[in-house]
Amino acid sequence: MPARSSRQDPPALGIGMVGYAFMGAAHSRAWATVDQVFDTPLRPRMNVLVGRDEAATRFAARRYGWHHVETDWRTLLERDDVQLIDICTPGDTHAGIAIAALEAGKHVLCEKPLANSLAEAEKMAAAAAKAAEQGVRAMVGFNYRRVPALALARRLINDGRIGGLRHVRAAYLQDWLADVSVPLTWRLQAERAGSGALGDIGAHIVDLAQYLTGEHLAGVSGLTNTFTTERPVSDRGDAELGPVTVDDAATFTGRLASGAVASFEATRVAAGRKNALTIELYGELGSLAFDLERLNELSFYDRTESEDTAGFRRILVTEPGHPYLEAWWPPGHTLGWEHTFVHQARDLLIDIAGGDDPEPSFADGLRVQRVLDAVAASAAHDGAWTKIQSP
Amino acid sequence: MPARSSRQDPPALGIGMVGYAFMGAAHSRAWATVDQVFDTPLRPRMNVLVGRDEAATRFAARRYGWHHVETDWRTLLERDDVQLIDICTPGDTHAGIAIAALEAGKHVLCEKPLANSLAEAEKMAAAAAKAAEQGVRAMVGFNYRRVPALALARRLINDGRIGGLRHVRAAYLQDWLADVSVPLTWRLQAERAGSGALGDIGAHIVDLAQYLTGEHLAGVSGLTNTFTTERPVSDRGDAELGPVTVDDAATFTGRLASGAVASFEATRVAAGRKNALTIELYGELGSLAFDLERLNELSFYDRTESEDTAGFRRILVTEPGHPYLEAWWPPGHTLGWEHTFVHQARDLLIDIAGGDDPEPSFADGLRVQRVLDAVAASAAHDGAWTKIQSP
Amino acid sequence: MPARSSRQDPPALGIGMVGYAFMGAAHSRAWATVDQVFDTPLRPRMNVLVGRDEAATRFAARRYGWHHVETDWRTLLERDDVQLIDICTPGDTHAGIAIAALEAGKHVLCEKPLANSLAEAEKMAAAAAKAAEQGVRAMVGFNYRRVPALALARRLINDGRIGGLRHVRAAYLQDWLADVSVPLTWRLQAERAGSGALGDIGAHIVDLAQYLTGEHLAGVSGLTNTFTTERPVSDRGDAELGPVTVDDAATFTGRLASGAVASFEATRVAAGRKNALTIELYGELGSLAFDLERLNELSFYDRTESEDTAGFRRILVTEPGHPYLEAWWPPGHTLGWEHTFVHQARDLLIDIAGGDDPEPSFADGLRVQRVLDAVAASAAHDGAWTKIQSP
Amino acid sequence: MPARSSRQDPPALGIGMVGYAFMGAAHSRAWATVDQVFDTPLRPRMNVLVGRDEAATRFAARRYGWHHVETDWRTLLERDDVQLIDICTPGDTHAGIAIAALEAGKHVLCEKPLANSLAEAEKMAAAAAKAAEQGVRAMVGFNYRRVPALALARRLINDGRIGGLRHVRAAYLQDWLADVSVPLTWRLQAERAGSGALGDIGAHIVDLAQYLTGEHLAGVSGLTNTFTTERPVSDRGDAELGPVTVDDAATFTGRLASGAVASFEATRVAAGRKNALTIELYGELGSLAFDLERLNELSFYDRTESEDTAGFRRILVTEPGHPYLEAWWPPGHTLGWEHTFVHQARDLLIDIAGGDDPEPSFADGLRVQRVLDAVAASAAHDGAWTKIQSP
Repeated sequence: MPARSSRQDPPALGIGMVGYAFMGAAHSRAWATVDQVFDTPLRPRMNVLVGRDEAATRFAARRYGWHHVETDWRTLLERDDVQLIDICTPGDTHAGIAIAALEAGKHVLCEKPLANSLAEAEKMAAAAAKAAEQGVRAMVGFNYRRVPALALARRLINDGRIGGLRHVRAAYLQDWLADVSVPLTWRLQAERAGSGALGDIGAHIVDLAQYLTGEHLAGVSGLTNTFTTERPVSDRGDAELGPVTVDDAATFTGRLASGAVASFEATRVAAGRKNALTIELYGELGSLAFDLERLNELSFYDRTESEDTAGFRRILVTEPGHPYLEAWWPPGHTLGWEHTFVHQARDLLIDIAGGDDPEPSFADGLRVQRVLDAVAASAAHDGAWTKIQSP
Repeated sequence: MPARSSRQDPPALGIGMVGYAFMGAAHSRAWATVDQVFDTPLRPRMNVLVGRDEAATRFAARRYGWHHVETDWRTLLERDDVQLIDICTPGDTHAGIAIAALEAGKHVLCEKPLANSLAEAEKMAAAAAKAAEQGVRAMVGFNYRRVPALALARRLINDGRIGGLRHVRAAYLQDWLADVSVPLTWRLQAERAGSGALGDIGAHIVDLAQYLTGEHLAGVSGLTNTFTTERPVSDRGDAELGPVTVDDAATFTGRLASGAVASFEATRVAAGRKNALTIELYGELGSLAFDLERLNELSFYDRTESEDTAGFRRILVTEPGHPYLEAWWPPGHTLGWEHTFVHQARDLLIDIAGGDDPEPSFADGLRVQRVLDAVAASAAHDGAWTKIQSP
Repeated sequence: MPARSSRQDPPALGIGMVGYAFMGAAHSRAWATVDQVFDTPLRPRMNVLVGRDEAATRFAARRYGWHHVETDWRTLLERDDVQLIDICTPGDTHAGIAIAALEAGKHVLCEKPLANSLAEAEKMAAAAAKAAEQGVRAMVGFNYRRVPALALARRLINDGRIGGLRHVRAAYLQDWLADVSVPLTWRLQAERAGSGALGDIGAHIVDLAQYLTGEHLAGVSGLTNTFTTERPVSDRGDAELGPVTVDDAATFTGRLASGAVASFEATRVAAGRKNALTIELYGELGSLAFDLERLNELSFYDRTESEDTAGFRRILVTEPGHPYLEAWWPPGHTLGWEHTFVHQARDLLIDIAGGDDPEPSFADGLRVQRVLDAVAASAAHDGAWTKIQSP
Repeated sequence: MPARSSRQDPPALGIGMVGYAFMGAAHSRAWATVDQVFDTPLRPRMNVLVGRDEAATRFAARRYGWHHVETDWRTLLERDDVQLIDICTPGDTHAGIAIAALEAGKHVLCEKPLANSLAEAEKMAAAAAKAAEQGVRAMVGFNYRRVPALALARRLINDGRIGGLRHVRAAYLQDWLADVSVPLTWRLQAERAGSGALGDIGAHIVDLAQYLTGEHLAGVSGLTNTFTTERPVSDRGDAELGPVTVDDAATFTGRLASGAVASFEATRVAAGRKNALTIELYGELGSLAFDLERLNELSFYDRTESEDTAGFRRILVTEPGHPYLEAWWPPGHTLGWEHTFVHQARDLLIDIAGGDDPEPSFADGLRVQRVLDAVAASAAHDGAWTKIQSP
């Protein structure tokens, strides 16, 4: 990390976070890290952690460095030491918390997917638009936009380095459900999670495809599958089985507004793929390829190169000029998955301080929701082509 | 190559080949090589090469080692020194030659795709079935079944190493049409080539998916695209443009008979991908992955392994126990693309000598044709789900 | 991160750190992180940061979360709120600080290389041995032992998975001096840095080779090179040049005690290699390979596998059973370079709490120093074979 | 393969080949292939195959297409139908055959290593120099110079693309002796093979290092090892053991004339490495890397690129403008190991027809021999620095 000029401490921004599980841990570490690494215009204060189980919440707060604990998120709406509410709970609670927070004048960071249903997502986007008029900001947590290699891909595409787009090939492959003895959790129940692989990890690749290309999907045709339809209700080895009510996998094709073709596959049963979010973009002038399992690398092919030396370049995205890297370690000293949340926190702090609307906005989250909804509708009708409703 | 026991020369099999361009060159080299490498039960004699331009055909014959030249393929039907007719011409001529040859009692090796239309393919399959009753053999040239790594994949799947199948992800990515100045050839004209990327390279991945899994596709939903709709009619730099009447790319999803999901993409405009036939197969117990640009390698993940050391293995498929390798060089001394044709010739000679019906049969070729036809039909109806007609 | 049982806070351990540049930043982040991730038996308190420039030190303290600031490290010896002194300064100051700290009864974590000279290293190891009798602990900061993939490699070797060792091939390739306009810094001056690539990055691969194999190097033969012998004295673009008095690169071969052969290359001028610490170990039964640019991966070849499926496995070292991973994210959610320091802090806290001598000990650091010294001596005598002095 | 203009058949060149084992098979296939692929100025005729066992030789001749058989190589000296003698026998016979052939006015292609001793190699180089005055040509079979990717590397280096050289890192790793039950063969006996890994595969990387850089090695320091000192005298499973009198592995460092550093490792016991000839070259302006297990690929890093997109490019060396590729298949249709011999045959035919001295010359072979000799001498003296005798 480069030396910085000495300077005054920036003003504080009080954070209240709801939820302390997987995403809560990742967000906590990001809030604790962001101003150690970046010269942020606001200094986040980890003021309040909210959870329903007070003892467990208290324990998490101590571990992650939150100053206070509450058991009802509504208390955050009243607290003066909270200017931003960070929502890390399951999708069925997002709309309620986010809308109330925005109406109370609190900035919101909401984990993805934005909501479990299109109707909720629409209300949330409307609430965010209204809040924005009052200077209240809302962001949805598609953290993979903040992988330096993907931010670099976005920059190269914006700079015209791959030319007119022809194909997008996106996949998010995991294998934690390949084992049929993995028990039911809320993530496998439609009423809590909304959908399965589609909403959880499919949401990421839909957002990335739209973000990287700067285009919206115009229509889709999709299939979903639940390969294991019943699972143990607990991990205690007893025989009771409960129904899996979400998809294990979703496969869909689509067209972008420009006519480019896109293919998507999201699955939790691809043996050996642990977190393989892969995306390839092919244009008239070049191509890009990325794999989250090697998140410090971007592959780039430049078709304008001489035949002799043209080839996919493995760019190690750790140079000081690469996105977010100016504040990190020397070249070749790689980052990890959790650092994407640090970058997300940085960008949000900059936008709040600067009075700008952050991206991805709730409208972006809604656009993803519309695609997911269309995929589910298409899958329910044997893959029938389904247009994506325009905003 | 290991020493062999000295033995009698095997009987000869006279070959007559029609066409001497790209595929003709590859097949010629295979016939010249096969019994130098393998202990084949028949010794191929490169007796007659057929081409319409006599001088050019004569030149090709001299180069590749064919003994005689003809300008009309019908003469092959009468010649006693021809027992096998090898068809290396564009798809619109396959049906005529193959059916006549089979009726004349000549074994047939026919390049893929089997035909340009489903109707032709059905007639060809019927002719092959009838000929088989007389001991006359017919094979379609899906040479990639003979890549050692893919033959090994087939063996591992047959042995149950990946368990019940869940996903197939197949792509065939090339980029020779990424350049908009590439001129029109017969491959870009529907009346000669039937279709574009779909029939030319999509056919390979459809065949491989069905071959490797041992299953048929039950239905598909597809999109096709022609990104460059007009191209120069010649490569002499003049301005005249002609219409491209085939697809540049085809993207489709499907379901296999078992319920497994499959995705396919065939394209000629994926900048930087030169010959990237990639296929991944995910099952309950393991996974396989392959890329034709690294054709000596197969990736295999075994989910039954201990967590500590489980990982995708890069199998260098050059061991003596690997398919076809018993006759080649020591481990690590890799093979090239053209050797797949040598293996194809070997297998065909063994089947002819043994009185067995070779695979892929014309019925296999017909099955591929049905899928391609269904993809085209689906694409013409906005991706509507299209069932594959049962044989 | 898995949920943990609620419990009492562990006792505190006061840290005083000297130096706040590159290594100081990395260590600061580790102390701030370690008990957020791991259930450590001691809770580190970031009590005092020491630097000569008070304003800059104060700024760094605020950024990284240190409570107090001092400008003379000697004050740490007296402070009751410091039980461990963490030395992150250039090598020429290590011996003085470390010996004084140990004599004052403070635990010590000292960055590598242990010292700039063998004489200093010997004194430090003696001081550490004496302090250990009083329960005072000393550790040298070879953080790469704490890369999960390398810790896994160590485990597999200990378990006999590669059998009797034959070859070690180690390299540490960087390229930040490939550019001849990079200015002189203390790292390029022998009186501050001791040596160049040899001591800075060569030290890492020597330690790793000895650590992973559990053997010591018995002798070496080495070459060193300074390709750019003069460099600008500042980065302000003026013309003044000063002499580079350390090596740009060191290449050496050696024998381990068992007779296995080892080769080493450390360089700062390997264009395109940013932080490529690579190590390969070949044994009778298998092999291992690692590259720091892909630090979440380990390659393992098991020669006892059947020929059909044997191949180098790419193990993604992110499973809960992998070293250090029990406390981190789900599989496939990768770690970064800085996390090696978190693991180092964890292990040191466990050893201090448990009354155990940590590894790598100062004696381990001395062993590395002896090898570096022998390489330098060999290089000064045209590569003459140089035995490594036994402890 | 592109169409060629029709033309007259080129004149014939009669070949007599001595030896029909591994190298004999590879050379046979090359002679049979070369003018099917390339427009060679001479048409090779496979006239005479020589072997001591007449029946086995006759069988090999029939398999590979040789017209006549002899059991004494001296008969070739007299035959009018032999203008080139191709020597594929063990190294102890090279000098006798090659010198007699050259004196008899026959062109010679001699497998590497040129000879088993420096004295023999010197005599052979002298004989070749003398013969060259009479228009008689001699080439040594370092076939890897003819890997397209390595020929491209040579071109890029010649064009200054990597600038002033700093490091060469070369290794040739195999594992066929990792298994201690592999029996003794002539390759493990010093009196037949001269040396082990050093002369067999070390010779290749020494030649490549000198060829690619255009420099000679000025001095070396080396170690050799025989890990398994006794092996079964037969593969029939009986207990009798015989002594292995050559090295299993050789590790050495050297300096090139320019001051660049080079490291080499040749081994037959690197488990999992089947034929991993790897070479990396680092220069001021860029770098190159190659692995024979992926022989269609070259990695190139261009340090003059912008930081944003600089990265090692994977060049798939199958474009028409790449060395040797103008005559082969379309891009992405890869070549195999045996095709290096086809290219070697092509180049030799062109040189003979053009009256040029081919490369690598016997003088080049002698230069390699001098290095191998120096490595062996150094290894015998505990790695003492050993200068390479100037020509």
